[in-house]
This record gives sequence, structure tokens and C-alpha cells, in this order.
Amino acid sequence: MRYHKIPDEAVWRLPIYLRGLLFLAEQGRQSVSSKDLADFLGVNPSQIRKDFSYFGDFGTPGVGYKTETLIKQIKKILKLDVVHKTALVGVGNLGSAVLAYPGLRIYGLDIAAAFDNNPKKIGKRVENLTIEDVSNLGTLRRRGIDLGIIAVPADAAQKMADGLVKAGVKGILNFSPCYIEVPKKVKVVSIDIAMDLARLPYYMRAS
Amino acid sequence: MRYHKIPDEAVWRLPIYLRGLLFLAEQGRQSVSSKDLADFLGVNPSQIRKDFSYFGDFGTPGVGYKTETLIKQIKKILKLDVVHKTALVGVGNLGSAVLAYPGLRIYGLDIAAAFDNNPKKIGKRVENLTIEDVSNLGTLRRRGIDLGIIAVPADAAQKMADGLVKAGVKGILNFSPCYIEVPKKVKVVSIDIAMDLARLPYYMRAS
Repeated sequence: MRYHKIPDEAVWRLPIYLRGLLFLAEQGRQSVSSKDLADFLGVNPSQIRKDFSYFGDFGTPGVGYKTETLIKQIKKILKLDVVHKTALVGVGNLGSAVLAYPGLRIYGLDIAAAFDNNPKKIGKRVENLTIEDVSNLGTLRRRGIDLGIIAVPADAAQKMADGLVKAGVKGILNFSPCYIEVPKKVKVVSIDIAMDLARLPYYMRAS
Repeated sequence: MRYHKIPDEAVWRLPIYLRGLLFLAEQGRQSVSSKDLADFLGVNPSQIRKDFSYFGDFGTPGVGYKTETLIKQIKKILKLDVVHKTALVGVGNLGSAVLAYPGLRIYGLDIAAAFDNNPKKIGKRVENLTIEDVSNLGTLRRRGIDLGIIAVPADAAQKMADGLVKAGVKGILNFSPCYIEVPKKVKVVSIDIAMDLARLPYYMRAS
């Protein structure tokens, strides 16, 4: 099921709610209200209720939602209720950090292949995977891998994106500090750590 | 100068506009309209004009802004027009990737110190810095370092955050997959790569 006419920003916030709910569930909370979740995340409860309203009726505001049911619903909306096989391109420092990241599995994300172009790395084992030559990217389609993570230097990123798209990947998480161009049917989320850092000084008080 | 009553989301978007403008400036574009910038970033031009309106008059919409002037203005608003010294805590794979990141300097961010608790790493040189023992965090204040980056395992993150806050840091970029609690005067931006990945499947078309 695809939900139409939902603002991108609401979709953007759902994983934040999901993370908060997973955390509250871990703490043993069996039910939560939009206010509980808002307090925990430091956001506005009316925003949460508005975002939830796009997706239909999750429960009665004020009464509280069953935590596990809400988690299941949000995962379903975000299509995280099935495992998505993901390919990592670039096993440098950043790529290795991504591979070791403990949170991926919670969201139904499974890094099923890792690629590099460095002959010294190809064939080596990391986190239960054998690093493959990037020339093997073409094998992704038949291996059922439909997400890609790009963690290569900026000057190689576009070429790797082209390879992923050609191999049938439908979503790319781009860590390289550059723009990549892909066909409209492919969704790209870019992470620029410098940009996130750049958001901090605004909030700093003069001392 | 601090701008009041500006929605966090507008502040959140400014670095995205800045990055786009820097890119267009690099390509030699001396003037841009909100539509140019919107097209380049794939966002709504009215959103850009609305966000800019919070900060006063940047120019005449439709006529075009001088690229360099706009860049200077946005940097000033985000307080990126002065160099912010930043401390990195945790020089593992992720920390090393952050240190090597080419984009930081563009935004006025300078990693001036790197810390770890691993005796094998302490004293080693990385990217022109000597890795210091985390027990030296207390020196940050007198060294004029007011931003911190946490790139340690989740179970050590809170302790490192406490150390940074105690040392006078006013903003923290948190890469550890966990919540950290800090006093209200300290701003935290958390990056959870799993959460960013979790935003992709929603946009994937059934095949």
C-alpha cells in the first residue's frame, strides 16, 4: 500500500517517531500518548497528531496507543516490515563504520554485499561479508538487492551511483560530499556531516 | 545577532540552501533566483522565499540574488562566518572518516583536537592532530573549543557528552546510536544513519 499526498516532511519525521517508540518499548512502556512521545522527543504533540492523521486512525489521541501496534503500523507505512537487502559501495573508514552499525537491522535493513575498488581490500572478510570488486555491481539485481549506500570519495560517487542504478537499485543513501544525479524513479537521501555540524553554531549563545 | 521566532525547520533548511549556493558559485554562477536554487535542490521556490523572509530582505524575488552576497548572509545568520573550533571524541572508523572529511572547513568548522580512550591510539598522529587521552577533555575551555563531535560506542556516549558539557562545549554533533541528555543551553544534533536509510523504502516503487 502506498499512501498518497503525504508531505515529504511527514514521511521524514516518521522514522524519528519510530526510533522514539522503539526506545520507549525497550524501556517496557506498553502504551504511549502523542504527548508522551512528544515529550520524549522534544517535539510538539500537535505535530505528531497531524502527521499521524495523514496515515489514518492510529488510535484515540489522549487515550494512548499500544506501543507495539504503533511500531508495527509505522514500520508498515515506511515499508520497513520486510527486510531490504542493501549494498555498500566503498569500504573505507566510513563504509566500515556503516557495516559495524548496530542499528540497521532494527529497521529491516540488511547489508548483504560490500564493494570496493582497492585490490588490497577485495576478497577480505568484514562483518561476515567478503569484499567484492565494484565491477561485480551488475549482480545486485539477481541477488535481490534494491538499496545502495555510497561511501566513496566525491570524485567516484557519480560513477558508483550510475552502477547502482544500472543494477536496479531503487534507493541510495549517499555519504559522499557531492550531488549525484539519478533517474526520477530512484530516491536519494544524502548525508552531509558538515551540513549537520553547520546547524549547531546558530543555537550557541554568546559567552 | 540572534534572530528570534524563526521556526527550527527554517534554520534546518538554511545549510541546505547554503550548500546549493556554494555549489552554484563554484560553477561560476554570479547570480541566482529563488527558482534557480529551488530547481537545483529539487525543492519548492515558495518555501525558499518564505524561509528567506524570516531573516529579512535578501533581495528581490524573481530578479535574482548575488550568489556571493547571499552566501555571506546565510553564513552570518548561521554564525558560520567565524571559525568554530571543534573537538572530536572517538577516533575509530567513524571518527577517522569525520577527520578526513573535506567539507568541514567550508562551513567554518575546524577540528582542533581529537580524543580517544584506547592507549594504542593516544599519542598517534592523524590529519595533523595528535590523539589525546579523553581524560584531557577538561582542557577544551581554555583552548577555545566550543563544539564537540561524539563518535564512540553507544554505551560510552553519555559519559563523553557529560565531559564535553563540563568542559564548556555549547553544541554537540552525536553520531552514537543513542539519546544523550544535556542541559538545555547545549544544542545536540544527532545523526542516525539507520534512520536516514529507513526513509528510503517508502519511496521505492513495487516492482
